[in-house]
Amino acid sequence: MNKRILLASRPEGLPKEENWTLDTQEIPSVGEGEILIRNHYVSLDPAMRIWITNVKSYLPPVGIDEVMRAGTVGEVIESKNESHPVGSFVSGWGGVQQYTLSDGKTMYSVDPKLAPLPTYIGSLGMPGMTAYFGILQEGQIKEGETVLVSGGAGAVGSIVGQIAKIKGCKVVGIAGGPEKCQYMKNLGFDEVIDYKNEHVYKAIRKTCPKGVDVYFDNVGGEILDFALANIRMHARVIICGAISQYNTNDIYGPKNYLNLLNKRAIMKGMLVLDYAKDYRKAAMEMGQWMMQGKLKTKEDIYEGIENFNETFLRLFSGQKKGKLVLKVIE
Amino acid sequence: MNKRILLASRPEGLPKEENWTLDTQEIPSVGEGEILIRNHYVSLDPAMRIWITNVKSYLPPVGIDEVMRAGTVGEVIESKNESHPVGSFVSGWGGVQQYTLSDGKTMYSVDPKLAPLPTYIGSLGMPGMTAYFGILQEGQIKEGETVLVSGGAGAVGSIVGQIAKIKGCKVVGIAGGPEKCQYMKNLGFDEVIDYKNEHVYKAIRKTCPKGVDVYFDNVGGEILDFALANIRMHARVIICGAISQYNTNDIYGPKNYLNLLNKRAIMKGMLVLDYAKDYRKAAMEMGQWMMQGKLKTKEDIYEGIENFNETFLRLFSGQKKGKLVLKVIE
Repeated sequence: MNKRILLASRPEGLPKEENWTLDTQEIPSVGEGEILIRNHYVSLDPAMRIWITNVKSYLPPVGIDEVMRAGTVGEVIESKNESHPVGSFVSGWGGVQQYTLSDGKTMYSVDPKLAPLPTYIGSLGMPGMTAYFGILQEGQIKEGETVLVSGGAGAVGSIVGQIAKIKGCKVVGIAGGPEKCQYMKNLGFDEVIDYKNEHVYKAIRKTCPKGVDVYFDNVGGEILDFALANIRMHARVIICGAISQYNTNDIYGPKNYLNLLNKRAIMKGMLVLDYAKDYRKAAMEMGQWMMQGKLKTKEDIYEGIENFNETFLRLFSGQKKGKLVLKVIE
Repeated sequence: MNKRILLASRPEGLPKEENWTLDTQEIPSVGEGEILIRNHYVSLDPAMRIWITNVKSYLPPVGIDEVMRAGTVGEVIESKNESHPVGSFVSGWGGVQQYTLSDGKTMYSVDPKLAPLPTYIGSLGMPGMTAYFGILQEGQIKEGETVLVSGGAGAVGSIVGQIAKIKGCKVVGIAGGPEKCQYMKNLGFDEVIDYKNEHVYKAIRKTCPKGVDVYFDNVGGEILDFALANIRMHARVIICGAISQYNTNDIYGPKNYLNLLNKRAIMKGMLVLDYAKDYRKAAMEMGQWMMQGKLKTKEDIYEGIENFNETFLRLFSGQKKGKLVLKVIE
C-alpha cells in the first residue's frame, strides 16, 4: 500500500494535523513509458507553506485532496521506461508519499555511490542549487565583498555562506540561538549574529563596518529592514524567501526600501527553477567542493510519513539542524 | 541686498513658515575665479524635503542656518572667471536665494535663446534628466512593453510617460484628480488612473491586462503595493522617489515585495546625479524631441522668495500643474 499525505484544507497560520489527510491507496500499476518509484526521502522546505495557500505564486497552489507537492529521492522498482531502469535512483517532485508513479520526464537520475541519497534533495538538490545560483548569478559576488545571509544555518543559507567564503568574500550569518551560531562558525563564517539574543541592526553595523554588498534574504520581516539600513553603494539584495512571513496574512513590508535609492542598490527576486538547464554543471562544481572539504552540509532526518506535519513545523519553529528531511521508506 | 531662505529648524511633518528664516545679506563681492549670479528661477522639488531631515541620504542634510539647497537658473552679473562671462546664463545648485556667489565649477552654461530659462531647471534640468535616465537606462524599456508611472502629471512622471511613448511603449499614468488626468491624456498617455477617484489596484488590472513591465515610482505607499501586485515576469520597478512618505516618520513598506520573487523582478533605486557625465547628450536628444513636438512640458511658476514655503507645500498637496518653479528675481 502507498501511504500519502493529501491537503485536506488550507491552514490559517501554522499548519495543523487537521489540514492534512494521511491516505492509503493501492500501489499504482505501471503503464507504458512509466516508472514506479519507491521514495526514500522527502524534502521539507519553507516554500511548501506558500504552495498550500490559495494564491498562485510561481507555481499553482496544491489542490484540496491532492498529494502534497515535495521534492523526493527514491529507487525505481518497476519500469516501462528505458531512461530509468529498475534499480536506478531518481530525484524529482515525487510528493509526500511512499510511492510515486511518473512518466520519468521530470525525474533526474542520481547515483547513491557518489553521494548519500539525502544529499540529492539537499546540497545537490533544490536548496543547494538555490544557494549556488542565488549567490553567484543573482548576487554577482566579488572577492573582498561583504555578504550577509539570514537563515545562515539553514539548508540554503549555510551553502550560500560557504560558497561566498570559497569566492573570497567576508561572510556574516544570521541565525537563532547559540547552537546554530556555532554551526555557522564551524562552517567558516567570519562573523555570526544570533537574532534571538542580539540587536540585529547594531550587530550588522558592528560586523559589517563597511556596509553590506550582498544581502541574501531567507527570512523577511524586520531583519530585512535592518539589512537594508546597512547596505553599501550598489548593493544587491537577493530575495530568496521570507520564512518569517509565511504563516501570517499581515505581511511586513520593508520600510527601509528607500535606501535602495540612496545606495543605488537592487532588490531582486530569484527562483531556482529558472536555472534548471544548468543544474548539472552546478552539481558537479558543488560535488567537487564537497570532496575537497570546502563545502559541508548536514541533513536533519526525521522518520515516518505519519509525522509529516510535526516535522514540517520544525521549519518555522527553527527546531532543526541543517536541511530538514523526512524518511518515508518503511 | 540678497534675500535668501535659511533652514531655521527641521520640520516634523509638513514644513511650516517657522522652519525657515527669510534672511537679508549684503550682496557678496566677487573674488578671484568667482562669479556672482542673479538667480531668476529656483526649482522646487520633492527631494528637498529629504535634505532637511537630519538623516544622511545621498547628499548630506542641509545644516541649520544654511541657505536651503535648490537648483537655480540665473544670469552672471559679475565675473572673475573666464568660463562664465558677464551676461551669460548658468544653471546649478544656487540655493533658495536671489544672488549666488560661485567658483563656477559646478555651474552649467545655458542658452536662453534655445529654450526659456525655466526649462533648464525643468525638462532640461534635473527632473528631465531623472526621467530620461530613469526610464531608458534603469528601466531598459522595449517597444511594446507596458509602462506604469505614478506622479504621471508631475515634473518627472510626465516626461517619463512621454519618453516611453516615443519608444513605442503602452503608457499608463497615475495622478490625482480629473484635471491632471486630462493633462496626461493630452500628453498622449494611453490610459490614466485617478487615484483620488478610482480603486488603483483594480484600475491597474484593467488598464494593464498583461501586467506591468516597468513601474516608475515617484510616490511610494499603497500605490507602490498595487503596482507590485500587478508586475509581469522580469518586471523592473524603478524607485525614483516616494513623495507620499516624505512628511511622515512611519514609512509604509511595500508588503507585496515578495512578488519580486514570483515574477523574478527587480526593484532598484536610481539617482540622476550618477549620470552627470551624460547630461549634455540627453539634453540634446530631449531638446530635439521638444522641437519636434513629441515632448511637451509645462512649468507652474509662482513669484516671490517670501512665498517659498507656501509654494513648496504645493508639491505635497498636489496643487500645481507641471514642474513647480519659484521666480525669485524682483
